[in-house]
Amino acid sequence: MTITEAKEQLMRLQRKLAAYDHAESIIYYDGNTTAPKGTAANRGVTLSVLSEERYRLGTSEETAELLEFLDANRDELEQKTRRMVHLMLKDIREMKKIPMEEYVAFQELLVKADDVWHRAKETSDFELFRPLLEEIFATNLRFAGYIAPEKAPYDFCLDQYEEGLTMETCDRFFAELREGIVPLLREIAQKPQVDDSIRFGDFPRQKQEELAFWLMDTIGLDRAHVGLSTTEHPFTISLGSHFDERITTNYHRDDFVCSLYSVVHEGGHALYDTGSAEELAYTVLDGGVSMSIHESQSRFYENIIGRSRGFCRLIFPKLRELFPADMAGRTPEELYRAVNRAEPSLIRTEADEVTYCLHIMVRYELEKRVMAGELAVKDLPGEWNRLYKEYLGLDVPDDRSGVLQDSHWSGGSVGYFPSYALGSAYGAQFLAKMKETVDVDGCVERGDFSPINDWNREHIWRHGALYTPAELLDRVLGGPFDPSYYIAYLRGKCADVYK
Amino acid sequence: MTITEAKEQLMRLQRKLAAYDHAESIIYYDGNTTAPKGTAANRGVTLSVLSEERYRLGTSEETAELLEFLDANRDELEQKTRRMVHLMLKDIREMKKIPMEEYVAFQELLVKADDVWHRAKETSDFELFRPLLEEIFATNLRFAGYIAPEKAPYDFCLDQYEEGLTMETCDRFFAELREGIVPLLREIAQKPQVDDSIRFGDFPRQKQEELAFWLMDTIGLDRAHVGLSTTEHPFTISLGSHFDERITTNYHRDDFVCSLYSVVHEGGHALYDTGSAEELAYTVLDGGVSMSIHESQSRFYENIIGRSRGFCRLIFPKLRELFPADMAGRTPEELYRAVNRAEPSLIRTEADEVTYCLHIMVRYELEKRVMAGELAVKDLPGEWNRLYKEYLGLDVPDDRSGVLQDSHWSGGSVGYFPSYALGSAYGAQFLAKMKETVDVDGCVERGDFSPINDWNREHIWRHGALYTPAELLDRVLGGPFDPSYYIAYLRGKCADVYK
Repeated sequence: MTITEAKEQLMRLQRKLAAYDHAESIIYYDGNTTAPKGTAANRGVTLSVLSEERYRLGTSEETAELLEFLDANRDELEQKTRRMVHLMLKDIREMKKIPMEEYVAFQELLVKADDVWHRAKETSDFELFRPLLEEIFATNLRFAGYIAPEKAPYDFCLDQYEEGLTMETCDRFFAELREGIVPLLREIAQKPQVDDSIRFGDFPRQKQEELAFWLMDTIGLDRAHVGLSTTEHPFTISLGSHFDERITTNYHRDDFVCSLYSVVHEGGHALYDTGSAEELAYTVLDGGVSMSIHESQSRFYENIIGRSRGFCRLIFPKLRELFPADMAGRTPEELYRAVNRAEPSLIRTEADEVTYCLHIMVRYELEKRVMAGELAVKDLPGEWNRLYKEYLGLDVPDDRSGVLQDSHWSGGSVGYFPSYALGSAYGAQFLAKMKETVDVDGCVERGDFSPINDWNREHIWRHGALYTPAELLDRVLGGPFDPSYYIAYLRGKCADVYK
Repeated sequence: MTITEAKEQLMRLQRKLAAYDHAESIIYYDGNTTAPKGTAANRGVTLSVLSEERYRLGTSEETAELLEFLDANRDELEQKTRRMVHLMLKDIREMKKIPMEEYVAFQELLVKADDVWHRAKETSDFELFRPLLEEIFATNLRFAGYIAPEKAPYDFCLDQYEEGLTMETCDRFFAELREGIVPLLREIAQKPQVDDSIRFGDFPRQKQEELAFWLMDTIGLDRAHVGLSTTEHPFTISLGSHFDERITTNYHRDDFVCSLYSVVHEGGHALYDTGSAEELAYTVLDGGVSMSIHESQSRFYENIIGRSRGFCRLIFPKLRELFPADMAGRTPEELYRAVNRAEPSLIRTEADEVTYCLHIMVRYELEKRVMAGELAVKDLPGEWNRLYKEYLGLDVPDDRSGVLQDSHWSGGSVGYFPSYALGSAYGAQFLAKMKETVDVDGCVERGDFSPINDWNREHIWRHGALYTPAELLDRVLGGPFDPSYYIAYLRGKCADVYK
């Protein structure tokens, strides 16, 4: 086999893997958006077959030989191919350590867990979901043991979502955040609370949908390639490549702000994905490099852009057009203050920027202890509630607004949550860098997203997974990651909103 | 290999094939219901990979050996397994005659054709679609030559949708129909035309959707396993097995009758599919046996049941509830006469029962001539329009209401249309048989569909593809198929409606 032949084979292999991804993703997407209620078991049967086929393809002798051959000749490969080989070899070496039956069983478990979690959340019934969650944590533990027995299991989990991330880093990062956030919250508590009544009223679903499409257009999403649907828990998914991207939202009839920021958050994910260089499509480098870089983009658009004064001024006329009765006599400044109201609350996805990281810390703490064997899954609701009291001062009334609120665990993800906090902090530092060359505030207020999107595309999006998160950060920032940018950003915002 | 092992392997193989079916079907379904406009090419890439993988799986040496082994031991197999082996061997023997590149290229062509057809229909631009349609007919011709060089190509096409069907049979069948229908139409033309103004008005989409769900419940569809979406051209599709079935409809704001009968027609398909015995799921025997038996069910529910006086009486109170202004002062009898108005029209799917078969004859005639090399694709619009003038006395104003109206050709299907007419005729004979033991009219008027559905399930649905269409007909009817039932049924209906 020549290197040229091997490279062609590598591209064909990635196209196949992308096709299986497409099939699995769309079955997942359909299950969450359109599928009749009784069809989860049917999806499970198909997904178990497809994941088995993909497993075979990804770990076959032929694939391993191809990758080892290319790896042995890596000095003759250009950077892009070298990175593909590196990522796929890492995957294959890890996959090979997991017995196929266990891999397939885990996929089937997740289909079932998704269905049961939805029902458990509806009825606030943790016990219904508990056996599945136990199995999900147990599987994560087992897989960690197979793949990285030298590591603490939770360090393995963290590394899955952010190459190189460890509990040590997280502990330090969260401590620094806590030191910044807790006094800030204490200061705010002394001030009169911001009036956020502007967000509440009667906002028909159809009008909110119109707003959602308008927002997608406004922030620069190409709706020929990005679709919008409705789900219980908003998410973003690529189908096969970044040429077909779907985001979802959830409309609350009495509060238009929930869907608004879901759309902008998921829109940020979709901008990142669809911004991949065309040549990366149908390869493992397509889309984003890591969860935290992904969250840095989604939360950049949601918060740094979306909760800025300029953005509130930009969207206010549209709100007045769609909701004339509710917006009568209101001002953009009222909207700005309302969407930046900082206050401990129960639901992570609806939390303000200041308290958001406290929600993450609760989850981080709990995952860490379960994975260390220090906490049983059955005790999660109690500990969840205890930590919400300790960190946020709140009583959790039921598991629906507590331990059952997120879809991550039912989706099999343990170790994902810290990415949200990291991503938020990256975003603040990106903003500082972007402001060196772009009039960010002016652009947002004018609704001219091109300079902002161009900057992100140039520095972040187009690279897909070409660089490691650390390399990418280094290239973008020209220096080390520094959480103090984020803390300074939050302090500035609070000073402005609370005077 | 023992026979037991071989049988287990056969079931595993069919599960895999069903999983690929699921993936391909849902990508098709998504493309028609939800996908953003610019994503067809992306679906094409995935479908070409998946169809190639499925082709390999279905035609591999291992598969062929397994099937030949079982076939050699067929005396030791129970009927169900014997039938599976027969159908799969037939497929594999046919598939092996098609070069894989051509098979894959055809799948890619169809994805593109679907997209282009939608655009061509929107703009009534046959030229846009022509090159793709030429390629579709050419591919059908080529495949017919590979698989059954001894047959006339169009006979091969007919056989694909109805085992054993030939042009000779069709010519005879259509001649008999023509002899019955043409004088009937002439008689009707002498009578005062029926007033169908009840169907026109302003029917909000949401109310029509509510009606659709109510109709699904009323005719006995299990909505935990049957979903409803909206598409340009209504269709029914199974995803992986009969446990997940999707039907679609198309709402016309000014005429509620279109969607009403789309739902009942597609609902008939879905009843048939979901009525398969549970043990047939994930096998090639799951779902219906042939297109004409399928159409016998869909058109049974749409016309024989759905356009009966009893059904109009049954649904009228619901219509009055949903559309109080438009239904004020109207009667069920007006609805009954309106939905049975017989009159030459342009669109097949909206045609009345009497003229419907004339629409089919046009398509049959054209396909037959194109496949015989007697008609060029570029001349299809002209010939289409000429035949509509000859058979139905109508001028076709544009290709959107003419040659571009159906999705069958863009979906690659040539030889499908005669099934509609055959199915209609089967249905009338099934009705006569059913009436020997079931009070059909009474059940419909009471909204008690169980005895009707039970009869169909017992005699037709549960068998899936266990029997050939001919065997099934023989079992149901206890005698030969006889089109005169259908002609008598149409005469009776017309006599009643037109007095």
